[in-house]
Amino acid sequence: MIPFEFPTFFQIFDFVGTLAFAISGIRLAACKNFDWFGAYVVGLTTAIGGGTLRDLFLGVTPFWMTNPFYLICSAIALVWVILFKKQMVRQNNTWFFFDAIGLALFTVTGITKTIGLDFSFWVAIFMGTLTGAAGGILRDVLLNELPLIFRKDIYATACVVGGVVFHVCALLGVGNELNGIITGLTVFVIRILAVRFHITLPILHMDKEKED
Amino acid sequence: MIPFEFPTFFQIFDFVGTLAFAISGIRLAACKNFDWFGAYVVGLTTAIGGGTLRDLFLGVTPFWMTNPFYLICSAIALVWVILFKKQMVRQNNTWFFFDAIGLALFTVTGITKTIGLDFSFWVAIFMGTLTGAAGGILRDVLLNELPLIFRKDIYATACVVGGVVFHVCALLGVGNELNGIITGLTVFVIRILAVRFHITLPILHMDKEKED
Amino acid sequence: MIPFEFPTFFQIFDFVGTLAFAISGIRLAACKNFDWFGAYVVGLTTAIGGGTLRDLFLGVTPFWMTNPFYLICSAIALVWVILFKKQMVRQNNTWFFFDAIGLALFTVTGITKTIGLDFSFWVAIFMGTLTGAAGGILRDVLLNELPLIFRKDIYATACVVGGVVFHVCALLGVGNELNGIITGLTVFVIRILAVRFHITLPILHMDKEKED
Repeated sequence: MIPFEFPTFFQIFDFVGTLAFAISGIRLAACKNFDWFGAYVVGLTTAIGGGTLRDLFLGVTPFWMTNPFYLICSAIALVWVILFKKQMVRQNNTWFFFDAIGLALFTVTGITKTIGLDFSFWVAIFMGTLTGAAGGILRDVLLNELPLIFRKDIYATACVVGGVVFHVCALLGVGNELNGIITGLTVFVIRILAVRFHITLPILHMDKEKED
Repeated sequence: MIPFEFPTFFQIFDFVGTLAFAISGIRLAACKNFDWFGAYVVGLTTAIGGGTLRDLFLGVTPFWMTNPFYLICSAIALVWVILFKKQMVRQNNTWFFFDAIGLALFTVTGITKTIGLDFSFWVAIFMGTLTGAAGGILRDVLLNELPLIFRKDIYATACVVGGVVFHVCALLGVGNELNGIITGLTVFVIRILAVRFHITLPILHMDKEKED
Repeated sequence: MIPFEFPTFFQIFDFVGTLAFAISGIRLAACKNFDWFGAYVVGLTTAIGGGTLRDLFLGVTPFWMTNPFYLICSAIALVWVILFKKQMVRQNNTWFFFDAIGLALFTVTGITKTIGLDFSFWVAIFMGTLTGAAGGILRDVLLNELPLIFRKDIYATACVVGGVVFHVCALLGVGNELNGIITGLTVFVIRILAVRFHITLPILHMDKEKED
């Protein structure tokens, strides 16, 4: 008999973060009248897409292939949206909050996994950002939309800043566990502030050239 | 001298399935006025995209890199569409039939390859579905369209059901060869029935929220 | 102290080629009003996307993870576009020229890397073409556009011809270094001539069928 164990903070954050990412994909799929299966695929891609790309680049087995948790989590997200479709708008603040937790946690796991495989710090920053932000890009590609994070409030940039903070703290001798908390909080706070105050990066404008 | 050998059933099904997948991509590319090379790339992506993703996830060399058969097969599909462009609509039933054979076969190869690498049964179901259905998704991404299989008659769901059937049969002690036939027939029959009777999954409707 | 070394021809071509690829992505991103981060991602994807897919297929660590050169190069490209936005149209010929250099060099590196890993010659031709041309396809997918190279002047076909030339030269006993130069020049000249004289592949026309 497996004794019941209370979930760790990591597991709770991983759960709500994965749920929030999957729900963002499923809601946008619902706006395009996808069927249940299509919505599930988009939700799953949003939740695991970034970490999958990271693992392919790192040359390790994608994380969700050793633990059914992430596939199940995306299924829970689908059931949630089906059941509470009409309440989703009212839940917006909650899901935004969970999404920011996911962004922070996934960035930290991306960084620490890369460091653990002995890659350079700049590869770790890259992989942290990829883990946090690439799922949303893949989601928008599947939905045939321009990737939202390229044009809206600061998102991936929060991951980059988090990565730099992690590296500086590591140089200062901060232990991995504390460093993860500091980095995660950095990403989380930047993301919350960015949305609260509509902080965006500068936009690159250019007129389309006439093709000859 | 290489003695002539009659192709096995597996090889025949692999040929017509690959051909049908490639042709579906090439025809859609032709509707967008792609050039021959572009149409070939879309056809090839449709035919090998699912299995390629599977092999990347499994950490093995993509199957088409050890045997030129699949690149040649896609070239044959291109020549076929160029030659019989005007007859394609009349051939619709044939190609639909071959496409269903491909879907069934690719699902089975995806499952057995994954099982052979000692992954869990749910990973095998996932990989079977990916092998069968992901090529069509990549095709639609290249064509800048919303993935068709997310909104039309049951397609990927047939692969999932096939995967479950495979697992149940394996638990019941059915041998791999017979199990592959049962699973393939399941996928094939579900797909044929789904299109014949327009069986679809429930649609997730939601109104687009106003962006602030 | 690291002694200063003059860059080799390879390094100079790699630099201007990477710069040209990144700039093509960043300019198109600017036409869609992406922010700086989004433009950087599109530029980077254009520059390293083809080689990354190649390395994933070959089962080796993506080339840009062992050398920050390519990430820095894409950052330089971003700064360049921000600073010289108004002059970009006047620089068109220069960047087109550098882009053709990149296409030629990337094709050759794709071929030689694949040969060095003992894959068949047709895999090498495939990988050379992928290295040269796939970045532009991924760029257009991110920009939510139909891939340009499927409908315009000969581009990827130049890589294929280069690959065939490489194989023939290798069969004739030409050494790898000279062969690389011949192959690169072939790709470069074909690309320049294709644009100069608007040489295109035949287009595949087909009317969209009515969906039932």
